[in-house]
Amino acid sequence: MIIIGEKINATRKAIAAALEARDAEHIVRTAREQAEAGADYVDVNGGDARSGREVENMAWLMDVVQATTDLPVAVDSADPAAARLGLKTAKRKPILNSISLESDRLAEGLAVAGEFDCMVVGLLMSDAGTPCGVDDRMANTRTLVEGLTGAGKKVDEIIIDPCFLPVSADAASGRAIVDAIAAIRREWPEIHIAGGLSNISYGLPQRRWVNLAALAACIFAGMDTAIVNPCAEGTMSMIHAAEAVAGRDEFCMNYVTKMR
Amino acid sequence: MIIIGEKINATRKAIAAALEARDAEHIVRTAREQAEAGADYVDVNGGDARSGREVENMAWLMDVVQATTDLPVAVDSADPAAARLGLKTAKRKPILNSISLESDRLAEGLAVAGEFDCMVVGLLMSDAGTPCGVDDRMANTRTLVEGLTGAGKKVDEIIIDPCFLPVSADAASGRAIVDAIAAIRREWPEIHIAGGLSNISYGLPQRRWVNLAALAACIFAGMDTAIVNPCAEGTMSMIHAAEAVAGRDEFCMNYVTKMR
Repeated sequence: MIIIGEKINATRKAIAAALEARDAEHIVRTAREQAEAGADYVDVNGGDARSGREVENMAWLMDVVQATTDLPVAVDSADPAAARLGLKTAKRKPILNSISLESDRLAEGLAVAGEFDCMVVGLLMSDAGTPCGVDDRMANTRTLVEGLTGAGKKVDEIIIDPCFLPVSADAASGRAIVDAIAAIRREWPEIHIAGGLSNISYGLPQRRWVNLAALAACIFAGMDTAIVNPCAEGTMSMIHAAEAVAGRDEFCMNYVTKMR
Repeated sequence: MIIIGEKINATRKAIAAALEARDAEHIVRTAREQAEAGADYVDVNGGDARSGREVENMAWLMDVVQATTDLPVAVDSADPAAARLGLKTAKRKPILNSISLESDRLAEGLAVAGEFDCMVVGLLMSDAGTPCGVDDRMANTRTLVEGLTGAGKKVDEIIIDPCFLPVSADAASGRAIVDAIAAIRREWPEIHIAGGLSNISYGLPQRRWVNLAALAACIFAGMDTAIVNPCAEGTMSMIHAAEAVAGRDEFCMNYVTKMR
C-alpha cells in the first residue's frame, strides 16, 4: 500500500490557523507524526485558490515540510500555479493531487502533469458531476488514462480516485464503488487506486467504523493507495490486516512486522 | 445479520471451570452480557464428547441459560445424544451447531437435524479434510443442501460454515473463502452463511484487526450470520458498519440506531 497522509490540509481548522500564523512548529509536528505512523507521502494543501494566497502558502508549506522529513510530498491543489510551484520545489518525485475531467480543469491539469516527473491523482469527476455507478467510473477512468498516457505518464504513475459518496444518502453507493474498484483493477493491473475514502461515512455517527469497513472492502477489491489520516485509531492496523486477508502479504510478514 | 454469541463454550478455560464447579452465576453473566451486546442466539457448548459428561453438561447449561434469557440457543455439539437433549429442551426454535460431511457424522447429523424444528449449521468439512478452494466448498455445500433438504429442512434453515483457514499459513486462503462466500450467495440466495471466523487470524499478533478485516470482506461478499464474541471490542460496530457499506442497511437506519 501507498499511504498518503492527509492531515496538512487548509480545510482543517488547525492547519488553516497554523498557515495564517506561519506556525511552522505545528506543521512540523503534523508532518512528523504522520511519518511516524507510516505515511509514505505527506499531502500538502495550502487552501482555496480564492484566498489569493494559495501559491504563497504552498511555497511556505513545501519549505517547512521538506525541511523536517525526507518523505516525498503530494502536492494538493487544483490551482495550476500552486501545483506547478509545489511540483517544481519537490526534492523527491512527488504526486500531483489532483486533476479531474471537468472541462475547465482537464487541459491544464494534463499540461501540469506532463511537465513534471510526478505521479498524478485523477479524480473521476466530470462535467456530468460525480460518477455513481461502475460504467461511468470505467468510462471516466478510460478517458483519464488516455489523456495522461498521451501527456507522457506511465499507467503505474496514475492514481485513480473513484469518488466516494456517502452511504447514508444512497445505500447502493458502497457496493458501486467497490465493484468499480474491482473492475478498474481488472482492466489496468498496474494502475493505482486511492481515494478520499472518509466521504463514505458523511453524516453518520462514529464515522471511523464505516471508514474502516469501507477500507477493508476496497483493499480487498484492489485499492492499493490510501489518502488517510495514518494517526487515526485503527487506520494503519486495518490497512495491514486487510492486505493480509486479501492475500497481498505472504506469510503475513508485513502484518507481523508492523503490529509487533 | 444473525449474531450467534460464542462465549459459552467449554473449550474456553473460564467456561470449563464454571461447568466443573456448576457456577451458574458465571454462565448467567456470560449469557446476559452477550444478549446486551446484541446477540440473537446464545451458543451453548458443554465440552468434548470424550469427557463423558457432555449430555449432563448440556442439560445443566440449557437450564441455566434459558432461565436467564429469552434468546434462542445454538446447541453446539457434535455428539448426537447431547445435541438431541439440547434441541428437545429448547424453548424457542434453536440452531443445531453443527453437522458436517464426514462420513462418521453425516447420517446421524442429518437424522438429528430432521427430527427437530431447528436451523442447522453445516460445516463444509468432509473425509477429504477441510476445503481450501472455491470449487470444493461449492461441491460440499451442494451435498449438504441436498442432504438437509432431503431431511426436511428449508434452504433458509441452513447456515453454511465455509471453514476459515489461517492466512498466516496460506496467503491465498482469505481470498478463497471470500470468493466461496460470494459463489454460495449467488447460487442459494436464501441460505445463511456464517463461520468460526476467528480461525483466520490464528498465529498472528493483535488478531482482532485481522478478524475485523475478514468480517468486513465476508459481509460484503454475502455472509449474513456471525458466530462471534459480540462483547469483543469493535465486533458489533464493524458488523453494523459493514452491512451499511454493503448496501444492506437503507439510509443506514440500523447503523445509526445501534451506534448512537
